Amino acid sequence: MQVLSETIRSIEPVDASAMSEAQRRLNSLTKPQGSLGQLEEIAKRVVGITRKPRPNMDRKTIYTLAADHGVAAEGVSAYPQAVTEQMVYNFLRGGAAINVLGRHSGARIIVADFGIAADLKPAPGLVACKINAGTRNMAREPAMTRDEAVRGVEAGIELVQETDLAGTGDMGIANTTSASAITAVVTGRSIEEVTGRGTGIDDATFRKKTRVIEEAIARHRPSANDAIDVLSKVGGFEIAGLAGVMLGAAARHIPVVIDGFISGAAALIAATLAPTVKQYLFAAHKSAERGHAACLTWLGLRPILDLDLRLGEGTGAALAMHIIEGACKVLNEMATFEEAGVSGRK
Amino acid sequence: MQVLSETIRSIEPVDASAMSEAQRRLNSLTKPQGSLGQLEEIAKRVVGITRKPRPNMDRKTIYTLAADHGVAAEGVSAYPQAVTEQMVYNFLRGGAAINVLGRHSGARIIVADFGIAADLKPAPGLVACKINAGTRNMAREPAMTRDEAVRGVEAGIELVQETDLAGTGDMGIANTTSASAITAVVTGRSIEEVTGRGTGIDDATFRKKTRVIEEAIARHRPSANDAIDVLSKVGGFEIAGLAGVMLGAAARHIPVVIDGFISGAAALIAATLAPTVKQYLFAAHKSAERGHAACLTWLGLRPILDLDLRLGEGTGAALAMHIIEGACKVLNEMATFEEAGVSGRK
Repeated sequence: MQVLSETIRSIEPVDASAMSEAQRRLNSLTKPQGSLGQLEEIAKRVVGITRKPRPNMDRKTIYTLAADHGVAAEGVSAYPQAVTEQMVYNFLRGGAAINVLGRHSGARIIVADFGIAADLKPAPGLVACKINAGTRNMAREPAMTRDEAVRGVEAGIELVQETDLAGTGDMGIANTTSASAITAVVTGRSIEEVTGRGTGIDDATFRKKTRVIEEAIARHRPSANDAIDVLSKVGGFEIAGLAGVMLGAAARHIPVVIDGFISGAAALIAATLAPTVKQYLFAAHKSAERGHAACLTWLGLRPILDLDLRLGEGTGAALAMHIIEGACKVLNEMATFEEAGVSGRK
Repeated sequence: MQVLSETIRSIEPVDASAMSEAQRRLNSLTKPQGSLGQLEEIAKRVVGITRKPRPNMDRKTIYTLAADHGVAAEGVSAYPQAVTEQMVYNFLRGGAAINVLGRHSGARIIVADFGIAADLKPAPGLVACKINAGTRNMAREPAMTRDEAVRGVEAGIELVQETDLAGTGDMGIANTTSASAITAVVTGRSIEEVTGRGTGIDDATFRKKTRVIEEAIARHRPSANDAIDVLSKVGGFEIAGLAGVMLGAAARHIPVVIDGFISGAAALIAATLAPTVKQYLFAAHKSAERGHAACLTWLGLRPILDLDLRLGEGTGAALAMHIIEGACKVLNEMATFEEAGVSGRK
């Protein structure tokens, strides 16, 4: 608990005067003022977060956290639970979408087991942070203890290494069920508004999924203002860990690009624990998964991309990293009107 | 005229059976079907365009064409005409936004003078394609002759080199005035709907710009179905050249990512000359410049990015190239369910 409370205390607002300085430089570069739109907003906020007038993004790290969900036993997913473990091995061999897109954007992928329901063979590149062998089935009992929830968040905080830009990603069969429950509780939206088809379930499974979420919330009554209560009753170990990554990065002045719906639900947890963390987050994309838009609205974040992605793993974060890095390069590398001998406005 | 008519004749529809084959492979990769959304659509269309089952994007080329516009004499821009030439020198020295973002995405920038109103010093990297020293003032007379319009398009066709992905960009003070006029004529929208603030003009200048476009169209009566007529009456040399780049690339089975509003207007010209060219185009982004959305709707293209960009030069194209290349890498590099030993749907 001490790591968590100290981390929360150490998260400062972004540096507004550094942002004003960045705005002045952006206005002096050889382009009409404001003509690079969101790139300028992104660059400015990165300066405010990092406190560096010319932030570089050489070191990019995506934290792809994996865990299993007891609620999978209710038959809420199109895929068997074993796929969580199998996909982790796919990550470690470099064959998954996140490996391809991470390489493409120059990001290192850190794969961590936060609670897979199997004993994984120790493998190069696999970080062991297992809180428990999968959550319990939220349809019947709370998903985890409060102590496990705190330990999950703290393990995420401690996972954050020195890096210029952090990204978040997830793997966990049935984890959209948990993310929908968290989103309904924290944002106050109806379950219908925040529940979607995950990996692609049919109508009957969708009805079952919605009912399971309704019953879990009705039975456990998670308190929207107590993020540890929400996590422990309807959360997941990878979601706890991702919230920790966000808090840990913010405490170290590292910008975080959050992926899709699972990362969005984790951000709701992180921002309930420490509202200032929102200033450190960039939303990679608008997921096709219903419920994600509600997360972004609550967080006050505009998505960088809108490509109908709904895979998770950190794939959207990997692509958005290229945009964020490009925004910083604009700030760092463009010539000013004076340097280039270009006339200003008439 | 022969180059143009032969190029138009040689543009074939994309290869539908190659696209079906790509869809089958996408469905076999370790992700829920369709979960990479637009990335899958992009990869599939690149296969249909290139006729390569595993297209790579190692060679990326952005054609940034520059020219001046006689209509600048009406005072329709916030910047003096000399900025066109000055910015070309900035491109050649590597200090402009397109240089920064081109380097970031690994694209080579080809800078060409299609009609700057000044004699540029020969410089390494500057391609000389000058059709004339700026267009004439469309408020008083047709912008160019039909012969000049054809020569502009043909020079663009001949500029296209062997490359895996082509991008388009522009530089030309007052060129949004020309682009708005073209867009109004070709799409049939009202001038109000397609005229914006360009580099950031004030209200009085904006009213003048709108009036100049109205009068030019009323005076010259360009025919929407005759793209050479439209170009010659209200076009620009860089716009003619960009239309040529699109046609030349399509004829060689090269995908083209078009930048913002000026490129969009050029695409209206290209697609009026050869409707099949639309199958070869990707829209890089949704520009903040009013009028661009009308181009994309008419072309039937969904923008890849939406970042409020309104700079031109090819900056949006450079960023979108990274997404298109990432889509191809997904197709080429991801493991299949079988290769990775991952279970399929229950």
